[in-house]
Amino acid sequence: MAELVAGVFERGPVAEAVDDRAWLGAMLNAEAALAGALSDTGLVDDDAAARIEEACSAEVLVAQLRAHDPDLSVGDLIAGLGALAGESGNPVVSLVQMLRLAVAERGAPEAAGLVHLGATSQDIVDTSLMLLVRDALALIVADLEGAAEAAARIAREHRATVIAGRTLMQQAVPTTFGLKAAGWMTALDAARAPLAAYEPQAQLGGAAGTLAQYGDRAPDVVEAYATRLSLAAPVVPWHTDRTPIGSLAGALGVACGAISKAALDVVLLAQNEVAEVSEAVGGGSSAMPHKQNPIAAISARASARRAPGLVSTLLASMDHEHERAAGAWHTEWLALRDLLISTGSAASWLRASLEGLRVDADRMRATVLALDADADPGAAATLVDRALEARR
Amino acid sequence: MAELVAGVFERGPVAEAVDDRAWLGAMLNAEAALAGALSDTGLVDDDAAARIEEACSAEVLVAQLRAHDPDLSVGDLIAGLGALAGESGNPVVSLVQMLRLAVAERGAPEAAGLVHLGATSQDIVDTSLMLLVRDALALIVADLEGAAEAAARIAREHRATVIAGRTLMQQAVPTTFGLKAAGWMTALDAARAPLAAYEPQAQLGGAAGTLAQYGDRAPDVVEAYATRLSLAAPVVPWHTDRTPIGSLAGALGVACGAISKAALDVVLLAQNEVAEVSEAVGGGSSAMPHKQNPIAAISARASARRAPGLVSTLLASMDHEHERAAGAWHTEWLALRDLLISTGSAASWLRASLEGLRVDADRMRATVLALDADADPGAAATLVDRALEARR
Amino acid sequence: MAELVAGVFERGPVAEAVDDRAWLGAMLNAEAALAGALSDTGLVDDDAAARIEEACSAEVLVAQLRAHDPDLSVGDLIAGLGALAGESGNPVVSLVQMLRLAVAERGAPEAAGLVHLGATSQDIVDTSLMLLVRDALALIVADLEGAAEAAARIAREHRATVIAGRTLMQQAVPTTFGLKAAGWMTALDAARAPLAAYEPQAQLGGAAGTLAQYGDRAPDVVEAYATRLSLAAPVVPWHTDRTPIGSLAGALGVACGAISKAALDVVLLAQNEVAEVSEAVGGGSSAMPHKQNPIAAISARASARRAPGLVSTLLASMDHEHERAAGAWHTEWLALRDLLISTGSAASWLRASLEGLRVDADRMRATVLALDADADPGAAATLVDRALEARR
Amino acid sequence: MAELVAGVFERGPVAEAVDDRAWLGAMLNAEAALAGALSDTGLVDDDAAARIEEACSAEVLVAQLRAHDPDLSVGDLIAGLGALAGESGNPVVSLVQMLRLAVAERGAPEAAGLVHLGATSQDIVDTSLMLLVRDALALIVADLEGAAEAAARIAREHRATVIAGRTLMQQAVPTTFGLKAAGWMTALDAARAPLAAYEPQAQLGGAAGTLAQYGDRAPDVVEAYATRLSLAAPVVPWHTDRTPIGSLAGALGVACGAISKAALDVVLLAQNEVAEVSEAVGGGSSAMPHKQNPIAAISARASARRAPGLVSTLLASMDHEHERAAGAWHTEWLALRDLLISTGSAASWLRASLEGLRVDADRMRATVLALDADADPGAAATLVDRALEARR
Repeated sequence: MAELVAGVFERGPVAEAVDDRAWLGAMLNAEAALAGALSDTGLVDDDAAARIEEACSAEVLVAQLRAHDPDLSVGDLIAGLGALAGESGNPVVSLVQMLRLAVAERGAPEAAGLVHLGATSQDIVDTSLMLLVRDALALIVADLEGAAEAAARIAREHRATVIAGRTLMQQAVPTTFGLKAAGWMTALDAARAPLAAYEPQAQLGGAAGTLAQYGDRAPDVVEAYATRLSLAAPVVPWHTDRTPIGSLAGALGVACGAISKAALDVVLLAQNEVAEVSEAVGGGSSAMPHKQNPIAAISARASARRAPGLVSTLLASMDHEHERAAGAWHTEWLALRDLLISTGSAASWLRASLEGLRVDADRMRATVLALDADADPGAAATLVDRALEARR
Repeated sequence: MAELVAGVFERGPVAEAVDDRAWLGAMLNAEAALAGALSDTGLVDDDAAARIEEACSAEVLVAQLRAHDPDLSVGDLIAGLGALAGESGNPVVSLVQMLRLAVAERGAPEAAGLVHLGATSQDIVDTSLMLLVRDALALIVADLEGAAEAAARIAREHRATVIAGRTLMQQAVPTTFGLKAAGWMTALDAARAPLAAYEPQAQLGGAAGTLAQYGDRAPDVVEAYATRLSLAAPVVPWHTDRTPIGSLAGALGVACGAISKAALDVVLLAQNEVAEVSEAVGGGSSAMPHKQNPIAAISARASARRAPGLVSTLLASMDHEHERAAGAWHTEWLALRDLLISTGSAASWLRASLEGLRVDADRMRATVLALDADADPGAAATLVDRALEARR
Repeated sequence: MAELVAGVFERGPVAEAVDDRAWLGAMLNAEAALAGALSDTGLVDDDAAARIEEACSAEVLVAQLRAHDPDLSVGDLIAGLGALAGESGNPVVSLVQMLRLAVAERGAPEAAGLVHLGATSQDIVDTSLMLLVRDALALIVADLEGAAEAAARIAREHRATVIAGRTLMQQAVPTTFGLKAAGWMTALDAARAPLAAYEPQAQLGGAAGTLAQYGDRAPDVVEAYATRLSLAAPVVPWHTDRTPIGSLAGALGVACGAISKAALDVVLLAQNEVAEVSEAVGGGSSAMPHKQNPIAAISARASARRAPGLVSTLLASMDHEHERAAGAWHTEWLALRDLLISTGSAASWLRASLEGLRVDADRMRATVLALDADADPGAAATLVDRALEARR
Repeated sequence: MAELVAGVFERGPVAEAVDDRAWLGAMLNAEAALAGALSDTGLVDDDAAARIEEACSAEVLVAQLRAHDPDLSVGDLIAGLGALAGESGNPVVSLVQMLRLAVAERGAPEAAGLVHLGATSQDIVDTSLMLLVRDALALIVADLEGAAEAAARIAREHRATVIAGRTLMQQAVPTTFGLKAAGWMTALDAARAPLAAYEPQAQLGGAAGTLAQYGDRAPDVVEAYATRLSLAAPVVPWHTDRTPIGSLAGALGVACGAISKAALDVVLLAQNEVAEVSEAVGGGSSAMPHKQNPIAAISARASARRAPGLVSTLLASMDHEHERAAGAWHTEWLALRDLLISTGSAASWLRASLEGLRVDADRMRATVLALDADADPGAAATLVDRALEARR
């Protein structure tokens, strides 16, 4: 069902950056980084680590499984792991078994036992999600920046273009279209900042988060593991501290809110009766081919509307029981991914809407003049300048 | 990402019943039923309708597209429609174009123009979702009934098995395990009733919901259309009245709440320190092979926790603008499907948990006796009898 | 803070029907009904019951406390109980102590020990909330009916008044204003039905829900208790089965969704650029005295927007642990009350908006004619007739 | 209803800091600061400003109204403003009228016209809410810090106290109670940081956010206004940019999640069957006087559970239409206040729970030994040291 409406809800590159294939890759990268970190710290010999790292590849696993089923694809591997996930509650248990087999069959039976050494499923799942988060955020931030840039351009261009201020959905006193766009820009910039500054952390703690199997080298293992993955190393494992997830959820929700506001204004201004803006490429209709719907802004709203519910799910799932939650942890996986995709899609749609926005300044002015012969937009233009200045 | 953890979040048959393939099939069924209804009412001649109905098949569409791309699969068709959905905001616009081409190429160019006659995209999307709802609800209801039946069996068997009542997570006075199970049963039955009674309605209104193109035959077309799809015929189009979606969302949310409660009790009773129940097949761990986690109850909780946020999304999206919403309508699609899948998965997991539940009645009794030499569970057994009696 | 904006968020009589004073009264009624039921069933002698019933009054309790503090008011009593509620987690523990004192001081020390006999705090809290629900629903249903009636009148009057159908916020093909109003009516009626049919249940179970202290008379006590309170008698205690709360929450959420849709349409149609409707009494502005804001519809939206989040809170709080939840139960209290108030306020505002709605049929027609010389609204008028007919 | 359970849901000083009286005071402070700022910038003469500032006091307004109603109290004033708020949609319109009258009656009729000069209702409402936010956050931050400090003390004291690690609610491998407490501390600290760093901003923009009435002095007026209120001065008005509200909501939601986690662990560890911790002052029961419920942790959970729904309401209400939203703005008021109160109450309860927590280290150890003779908690103690070190 997602696929059939992917064009609406998965615009832009985020969906692919967090899809099953990417997630599987991230889990394998985490296992490889662990082997590497154990070799970095002398807990596993370099050869064994190298064998494990070689095996940590979807292609290698598929190649190995083809011995039994020559037609097997990565998609089949994913489906298989997904089905097995039902037995233990997560996909790592089976993945580790597969990796051990792969390492053993590649002639390193002693190395097989060192796969996943000292780690627990949550270490791999949490770390892999943070890898996806890192990649997704880079993409989301870029589209939020693009949308803000487009708003900035409009603000600059229309700093003094008078338009009716509308409060409580009634025409009020004049403002400028530039100041309206500056408001979009300010909000998009404010929403982007925490996402750009977000530092995804590696997770490594072992069965109960005590790093029990690494002895004195525990801090070094964590450090090396994080470094190899280009993630931040946490002071202590955060398996029971879900503030990193909750904060990210909140920030994504705020981004969707900022996007929604700008998209809503576009939709309202594009009404035939207002007709002060239109989108460059309007969406069609199966019943009315002549219509030109502001489909980019509409789709931005549709994607963004998913966010508040998903944020509430993630916040409500922060209360993990003891050292690993019996349900709340699992719930994070889909909600977080859906939230990343929705935010990315919404940002990409809004950017497209604003980058192609057509502005009818004459009509804006005419409405104001009909309302108020004076049409003085106060300090609006100066405020636009201030906002643009502060942005630099 | 859903695929990689499908074993956790998509247990049971619901996910397949509402997947992209099913949805595409449902949309084609809706278009076929429309053609049939137009022929039933004499608005389209029988031959033309027959040609359209023949074309309304994913296989036919794929076969046709293979003229251009011999390797094309249904999956590719879905991906293609999904990508095109971004242009108009929904997948129907392109689907109708494809259908028209298919009908034309099958030698009925005059019939091609009759495809989708008088309908709008929302008619097809809403109707197809109701077809998925109908199928999904049958499956969900069956698993809810199965779970309730398992709870009833436990209630009957343990009607007088004393167990510590626990309030505010502290041991209180005795009750019976049967009464606890009867509480699960009562809630599951109460949650099932509205889902079993839910009547999915066909949607047909045309561009603005006025049934403009069918003249006097409008009511008959709607009736025939609904009948052909085994859906209820609405008095008037409900394109702007989303109470059918909101009510369903609420009822699914209640079902998840009832499931969560029973699953939580199982998880709590299965704690090593309590150890009054265990699941037949415990889940494994990547770090601690000896552990036996109540994985069915845990997974039921994980699936059910998605519900409150999804319900809030659907309720918040009931305020559609005018005759078709600019975003809120679209948001329903994924949220409704995710909610159906989550409820189905949660129900299936709980059923598995309860059907295989192992009960340690001796340990239950011992705890009570340690607490209270008297161990009188009051009218608990009688209440169980009443609950079972009322169920029949 | 609620008080300072009560005019916006607490319109209509619901807020008072569920306020602290009403809640305290309902708890006292529940205690009185319990004493009465115990006397009905011979478990407590009639005199003792009569003494208890006399004491179950806020005025009596206040009078008694005035011995120590002559200026004490019912508000002070509430504040005192509220402060003490922090010690046990609910206000019943202290209330019962107060009642016992009052009964003892009224010369019936032996009756004092019979206050609250066999009951637990949850029995009184749940029952009292259901008394508030019963009263609040009657009021909400009346305003929903009033709003639907106003919509019906508009539908009848404007069954053939052409207006531009607007889809995705763009003018589409013509419909009639009557059909738009009929859509509001249909949704309001559909949302009202489950609220009107809702059967609030009494709660009585004792410490662990086993009705342990009433012996064989347990079912009769419950029956008498419920009868005295004009509530339904449950088959078994529902202290751990929160489907009654969840279902109600869902239905209230749907009502708010239906209200929001109509209110949103009014706000959109009242935009200066559309100007097809206006409210009889527009709201003022502190900065622009000339403005006429559709304040009733705006306030309906403001109240209704609280609902989705509150519903999600109530659904997420259905998973009560064991025989009484350690937090989730408590969370219901405020969320349920806020949801009742919000729905009542939204319904009352929408009713006011629709009852006073001014319709500019000429302007509606002019817009359509500018769009489409034909202006054929299809079967819209007939659909209005059908909807009105089905309503009877 | 809030009052009757205030002991549960309004523990600590936050409720009073954001109540109606505080809100009214903050609105009056905003009006006074505006008059002062206009005098600072020479737009209003000092005398007139002084008269306005004198009138900006609830006591002055009440004194004035007593001419008509000698018994009038501040509570009555609030109720009156609240009722009138229904006419314009907010309480400022009437408040300004009252202020003007008060200034005029104090012998400064020319100053009366300068009250609220150039401002709009939203300026006063937004600014006053930010004043409440500032005060509430200071209190919330203090209790979060107190709770974290209590967790730190436990972590230090029990850095090496072995306890069973519990994953998926089953005993796993050993950890230390100190590391568990360090996890609480880390999360509480992480959640506190953004709240402590939050910079509430003044709002001033006038009717459409253009600062139209201050000419060239606009930036100086804003600066002076903010300075007088000890709030940050925004670059441009944020009346349509709700990221300040959304970010705050997210951060409060995260705090509630962190609180919930620690409280849940306390509740779980306090179960009779586990009995590894207990609260200093257990809560009582109306039916079972012997019980000792961990009422502080329970109440923390009850308060915190309100948060996810409220956050979703605030995020979903970020999409304000044009220059002032027709409903979404209003919805912020109650949701934000409820969220502040809930977070404050939850923080205060958790602090009380942790500060008085009784730890049974022998029992913790005994459980571990029964599970695993070795009882090696790995690097747990070192991790505690690292966490405590990083905190300084």
